[in-house]
Amino acid sequence: MLLLRAVAGRRLPLPPLPRSRCPRAGAASFARGSAPGAGGRGRAAPVLAALLGLGAVLAYGERRRRAAQAAQASPAPRYPLYTREEVGRHRSPPDRVWVTHGTEVFDITDFVELHPGGPEKILLAAGGALEPFWALYAVHQQPHVLELLHEYKVGELSPEEAAAPVPAAEDPFAGDPPRHPGLRINSQKPFNAEPPPELLAERILTPNELFFVRNHLPVPAVDAESYRLRVEGPGGRELSLSLQDLRTRFPKHEVTATLQCAGNRRAEMSRVRPVKGLDWDIGAISTARWGGARLRDVLLHAGFGEERDGEWHVCFEGLDTDVGGSPYGASIPYRKAVSPDGDVLLAYEMNGAELPRDHGFPLRAVVPGVVGARNVKWLRRVAVSPAESPSHWQQNDYKGFAPCVDWDTVDYSGAPAIQELPVQSAITHPRPGAAVPPGELTVKGYAWSGGGRGVVRVDVSLDGGRTWRVARLAGERQAPGRSWAWTLWELPVEAAGGQELEIVCKAVDSSYNVQPDTVAPIWNLRGVLSNAWHRVRVSVGP
Amino acid sequence: MLLLRAVAGRRLPLPPLPRSRCPRAGAASFARGSAPGAGGRGRAAPVLAALLGLGAVLAYGERRRRAAQAAQASPAPRYPLYTREEVGRHRSPPDRVWVTHGTEVFDITDFVELHPGGPEKILLAAGGALEPFWALYAVHQQPHVLELLHEYKVGELSPEEAAAPVPAAEDPFAGDPPRHPGLRINSQKPFNAEPPPELLAERILTPNELFFVRNHLPVPAVDAESYRLRVEGPGGRELSLSLQDLRTRFPKHEVTATLQCAGNRRAEMSRVRPVKGLDWDIGAISTARWGGARLRDVLLHAGFGEERDGEWHVCFEGLDTDVGGSPYGASIPYRKAVSPDGDVLLAYEMNGAELPRDHGFPLRAVVPGVVGARNVKWLRRVAVSPAESPSHWQQNDYKGFAPCVDWDTVDYSGAPAIQELPVQSAITHPRPGAAVPPGELTVKGYAWSGGGRGVVRVDVSLDGGRTWRVARLAGERQAPGRSWAWTLWELPVEAAGGQELEIVCKAVDSSYNVQPDTVAPIWNLRGVLSNAWHRVRVSVGP
Repeated sequence: MLLLRAVAGRRLPLPPLPRSRCPRAGAASFARGSAPGAGGRGRAAPVLAALLGLGAVLAYGERRRRAAQAAQASPAPRYPLYTREEVGRHRSPPDRVWVTHGTEVFDITDFVELHPGGPEKILLAAGGALEPFWALYAVHQQPHVLELLHEYKVGELSPEEAAAPVPAAEDPFAGDPPRHPGLRINSQKPFNAEPPPELLAERILTPNELFFVRNHLPVPAVDAESYRLRVEGPGGRELSLSLQDLRTRFPKHEVTATLQCAGNRRAEMSRVRPVKGLDWDIGAISTARWGGARLRDVLLHAGFGEERDGEWHVCFEGLDTDVGGSPYGASIPYRKAVSPDGDVLLAYEMNGAELPRDHGFPLRAVVPGVVGARNVKWLRRVAVSPAESPSHWQQNDYKGFAPCVDWDTVDYSGAPAIQELPVQSAITHPRPGAAVPPGELTVKGYAWSGGGRGVVRVDVSLDGGRTWRVARLAGERQAPGRSWAWTLWELPVEAAGGQELEIVCKAVDSSYNVQPDTVAPIWNLRGVLSNAWHRVRVSVGP
Repeated sequence: MLLLRAVAGRRLPLPPLPRSRCPRAGAASFARGSAPGAGGRGRAAPVLAALLGLGAVLAYGERRRRAAQAAQASPAPRYPLYTREEVGRHRSPPDRVWVTHGTEVFDITDFVELHPGGPEKILLAAGGALEPFWALYAVHQQPHVLELLHEYKVGELSPEEAAAPVPAAEDPFAGDPPRHPGLRINSQKPFNAEPPPELLAERILTPNELFFVRNHLPVPAVDAESYRLRVEGPGGRELSLSLQDLRTRFPKHEVTATLQCAGNRRAEMSRVRPVKGLDWDIGAISTARWGGARLRDVLLHAGFGEERDGEWHVCFEGLDTDVGGSPYGASIPYRKAVSPDGDVLLAYEMNGAELPRDHGFPLRAVVPGVVGARNVKWLRRVAVSPAESPSHWQQNDYKGFAPCVDWDTVDYSGAPAIQELPVQSAITHPRPGAAVPPGELTVKGYAWSGGGRGVVRVDVSLDGGRTWRVARLAGERQAPGRSWAWTLWELPVEAAGGQELEIVCKAVDSSYNVQPDTVAPIWNLRGVLSNAWHRVRVSVGP
């Protein structure tokens, strides 16, 4: 990752003018890049502006001047044709970095280091289409960006490259929606993917397209018009609610909440000893502004009271079903569901848009402060029950065990289902193994805790945990006990040249719970609850 | 601690019959033992019965038979006289172990290993009076116990040993109450003391006499008849409540709750680097059944509603004041105070008795799940306020900081006041440095977490944390989210002879928060929040 360096404020050589690369013939197929239309919502505020440094701005200006001269001097060239597969072979500077925009192909290798957002961000699009990434950052919606891009044009896509391949009809996942190419895929069927670490903690609100996806089953296709939610429980109480009912009969409640999969950071645990589960890096966590009806309001409307014994649960069932027709299911304590401070939603909006299909269209549970697995998507049924959900995912998964428990000795009945998650944090920048230049380095990351316990401090070490500094926290002040959203943090440090750094972070929540030092003592056979100090080793250049 | 061994089930030599030891003259003063009258309440169930093993029972029987023979054979002896100070010099087997009962002096050295409750328990009384300890354990209220004791009589107390010395009148602590001699004193003025580790986790409910005492100031002398609690807040609402009002106008609510000082286990932190504060071992934590009026009921009765912005607090003031007349004070979030699930009490009862003076007579706040410092004793005022208590103890103490913060850089405004405490556990048996016999060893301890988060698992390691086993948890099932009482745990292990063990425990709470591995990374200048894994090194005999 030689190019993983910040551009701003550093002296850079001007890149050479774009030149054509040798065209190579190839079959009309593509490895990636069947991206959805880039309908840029532009709701979240762009952050790249803050990243623009003087050096990059000057380089931009000089390049535009020289490009204008070149355009006057030469006629419009004719370009060679490429397949998407051919474009996809150019993903790193040694192979050149190619991207597409519309039907045009560009070799942006020489621009990578000039990218005002940093080379690591533009490299996320390498080998594929730019549009899905530009849609995330409104700063690209300016004429000079396209103008600049055209200087790097090296070809056109072959005309037969327009349509995506049609999946086989018998595939239960055939109806899954298109996904953003920036997602790091851990499993294709069912689809499970996380945002790239470089984009993970850029903003408090994760763009919908990059929000981590945790599907257990194929994505159901739901007709919003005929959709009904069943709400039921003891005493024969039963409701059937349309989306319109949910939107009009209950006040809309909005909550900014972070969701985290119990398996976030499992990859670190599996490096201690193999575990069973998807190999999540640090990105099985994301944050959105959710909108919907409060579950409390619906429960009270249905006649279920405020008070109920502590063992009662509200069970959720999804419309996603396994081959035998059994739905995904999970439950939460009634106490949490009905509490005015619990902020549990039957959500139909995500960051101001209707729920994307991967995130539960048309309706999902959002249970702030509680493990992702209980935030059931594609809700079909909400049931008040004297006991937890009988679902496999409540009874025989998503539970924590001691490191000594193995698949021969595990007794799922002996551990409580995970609800609130423990305090967590991770470093998003720099990346493990990066070579960083000497001088100022801004270490960045996220921190969060379950149960509405806000993050009160993040400590950062550059020497593996021997000495510590306190990071600066970013984000709006949240209500005590209802701090559902993560806290982003950063710490500028001076990195002396020629050394290795072991950067470590650990967070403290409002109950002063802290993260454990090491992974092995919290290792468990399912690889859940991986919240040890996050450690990133980097080398500082000479 | 050669004698720190369990008796039950092991072959033991019969002790020799008691013999007189050489009397030594001495001044009539005493080093310890000004014990309160032993008014044994006997409410908490005795646990010693469970500790009785066959070997000890057999030894008892044989001893009684031989004692009866001896009594028939010889006339009543005349005994030498001793001062309490002289008795106090005999506290361990090499110096002989002496105790008093009434005005009689006994040399129980040869009984120590036969004690059915274990030698470590009987040694707590060494050099002083037996009565305060017998009062804690109803099993001693049987005729054969006194009969057995008399076999070990070696003398009488001097007649002038009756009265305790009268403290100087100008001493602000002169009015402090008498205390149990078993308490381990960390500070005499103000009085701060913890139960001995050997008795700490014997029962879920800590006897009132052994409950840890954390006083910041002299104990106020309160007249229960004229006592009034002021309740006030915005809108001119004000109440003045007598004890009779509190007892009769509000339903009595009972809660079993553990209180823990923020400084519990500070001694381990100060071994990393010196900290400022009392040198608490593992005993600044105790549990009682509290009875009183719910603060919620009193607040609603006074006209304060259910809902209030998250920043509002309920401020407590005590009748204990410093030399300038300023009272001890602290506050808790209004949300906690008014929540039906918060179980906050204005408590007038502790384990079925009226509050002892050291614990807040006649009224104290009990805030389950929250640091001891907010459980204000000798309550004189409860005030609903838009902000936290302005008290020194809320603003400039009882806060957590990073290890890099020192007394030159500390900014108390930059950290939140501790409310809920993090997950905690400690080993109460065996004790650090003990020599244990090879064979079965039962490791025991306590675990607790703040915020009503119950303990779901305790892991124990014998090898410093490399491998782990799961302990057995004891205690009643508590309501989810309202698990205010600690969990006692134990794990029987086989200790192979001739090795050193590094016993470690770590607990997991219902939010799956865990304890950090080591102390140094959570070190802070005030030595609070010391909740790293508890480590106890012992040697196993050959």
